[in-house]
Amino acid sequence: MMNYARLTTLNAIKGLTIEQLDYLPYRDSNSIGALLLHMAAVEFGFQVELFDKRKPNKHESEEWGAAYQLGDLGRNQIKGNPLEFYIEKLEKVRSRTLEEFKKRSDEWLYEEVLWGNNLSNNYFIWFHTFEDEINHRGQIRILRKMLPHS
Amino acid sequence: MMNYARLTTLNAIKGLTIEQLDYLPYRDSNSIGALLLHMAAVEFGFQVELFDKRKPNKHESEEWGAAYQLGDLGRNQIKGNPLEFYIEKLEKVRSRTLEEFKKRSDEWLYEEVLWGNNLSNNYFIWFHTFEDEINHRGQIRILRKMLPHS
Repeated sequence: MMNYARLTTLNAIKGLTIEQLDYLPYRDSNSIGALLLHMAAVEFGFQVELFDKRKPNKHESEEWGAAYQLGDLGRNQIKGNPLEFYIEKLEKVRSRTLEEFKKRSDEWLYEEVLWGNNLSNNYFIWFHTFEDEINHRGQIRILRKMLPHS
Repeated sequence: MMNYARLTTLNAIKGLTIEQLDYLPYRDSNSIGALLLHMAAVEFGFQVELFDKRKPNKHESEEWGAAYQLGDLGRNQIKGNPLEFYIEKLEKVRSRTLEEFKKRSDEWLYEEVLWGNNLSNNYFIWFHTFEDEINHRGQIRILRKMLPHS
């Protein structure tokens, strides 16, 4: 499911230019580039929380904060990057997730974990990670339709 | 996962008026209402295909065609309905899915099924059903942000 979600994300962004990745079609919108970096940021955040069992450090918060929060911060800080930049970020983060999965058994998926204040498990939290990606992939498809015709 | 996806869909549409459900913010856009009916249509389509093992009949195709296809057909045919109309459609269709699930074992999820020309299984196809819902929920969140401020 996680791989399928990523495949559809990559299909949705094929051939986008820097200008298209930065395009903001309406007030308060997020760019396609910012949404892509957000996907990597969410996954990175869960890696730190669930694999490393800690909070992000200062350096990590600075690196990922804008992508995680989106909004004004994302609009100001995330721009000017080519498609390859986003794809590399996505792939680099994902490769760690898959490595960590390999070290664990299927039973680990069903181990209970606190998610915020709610009791959850690893399966559901990793589902949520790509569920959020799918949500934003849907948004990227709309943003792509709204690009000015060149 | 399916229930969670639905919960987030319902949260995304709370309080929308007929006018807001029909709103088309840009050329070629789909309304929030059309996306909601599309979710029910996709699920209905898989019920017919996977539970009933047949193609939709003429009556069903007429009832669901616009919601399934979206685009011009959706824009022309799906409008003027209050939020309750869409929620009832979603719930009616979902209640059959859950009833059918109850009749089946977990092993059924892993039975191989053809999806188009690709070998798949029941688990993945039902994942895809709500994966499509999540995609459109993401779009609904954008469409909602684009509503004219009242």
